[in-house]
Amino acid sequence: MHRTLTVGQAFEVIKAGKIGRLGCIDRNEPYVVPINYLTDNGAIYSHSLPGKKIDVMRTHPRVCLQVDQIDDDFHWRSALATGKFEEVKSAKDRRLVLSRLLSVFPSLTPVESMIVQDAAAPECIVFRIVIDQITGVEEN
Amino acid sequence: MHRTLTVGQAFEVIKAGKIGRLGCIDRNEPYVVPINYLTDNGAIYSHSLPGKKIDVMRTHPRVCLQVDQIDDDFHWRSALATGKFEEVKSAKDRRLVLSRLLSVFPSLTPVESMIVQDAAAPECIVFRIVIDQITGVEEN
Repeated sequence: MHRTLTVGQAFEVIKAGKIGRLGCIDRNEPYVVPINYLTDNGAIYSHSLPGKKIDVMRTHPRVCLQVDQIDDDFHWRSALATGKFEEVKSAKDRRLVLSRLLSVFPSLTPVESMIVQDAAAPECIVFRIVIDQITGVEEN
Repeated sequence: MHRTLTVGQAFEVIKAGKIGRLGCIDRNEPYVVPINYLTDNGAIYSHSLPGKKIDVMRTHPRVCLQVDQIDDDFHWRSALATGKFEEVKSAKDRRLVLSRLLSVFPSLTPVESMIVQDAAAPECIVFRIVIDQITGVEEN
């Protein structure tokens, strides 16, 4: 049976996840890619090297993150957070976010680990999604 | 190391999957939901009861399906098929698609199983995504 999650339940799904699917709009076409992320203070944080995903979000900053917990076809939850893409630009904040990402994802590449030491390095884009809507559904 | 998949490799990822993330555009906002699907003759087939997902795709039929195979942070493939949402309306085709979905996903609900017997029943929307672009990336 399908049930709508409360905002709080949906946010718990987002908070509990590590991999989500980032949805963006690329010149009026949907674009979806998996990302690693973490949450802090009600926002979603992630990072990326330059590329299509970043180009798309800079052009159309309305984005979403879909996260699910799938046990089987009859027992699952899915949550969708929608909000605004913002780049984290101060060296201090970049260092903080990358340190936390590194602690959650110890397998970040050497390049990314180096950036934690030198967060002013421009190669890695650190960004957040400021959530303004969150919904979810479950079946169980 | 990231590598771009060929169209053939990306299509193999789509073909091998059972759960994908459907990306749509809802009034200029991205919208992503997990779906069960199968492929046939180069198209993606799925079904749904009426609801937001169907409303969104009817309004904006450009959609995508993202499918990944994630072993760990360093060994994964992700593919993205983009195309056009089309409803399958003939009773014969609906029955064929629902029968195949039922064989791949034996846990379809009783309602859906009944529709296989009576594919003219309007409650269940059967749809396909006619793919016109497919891309993918891997790390290994």
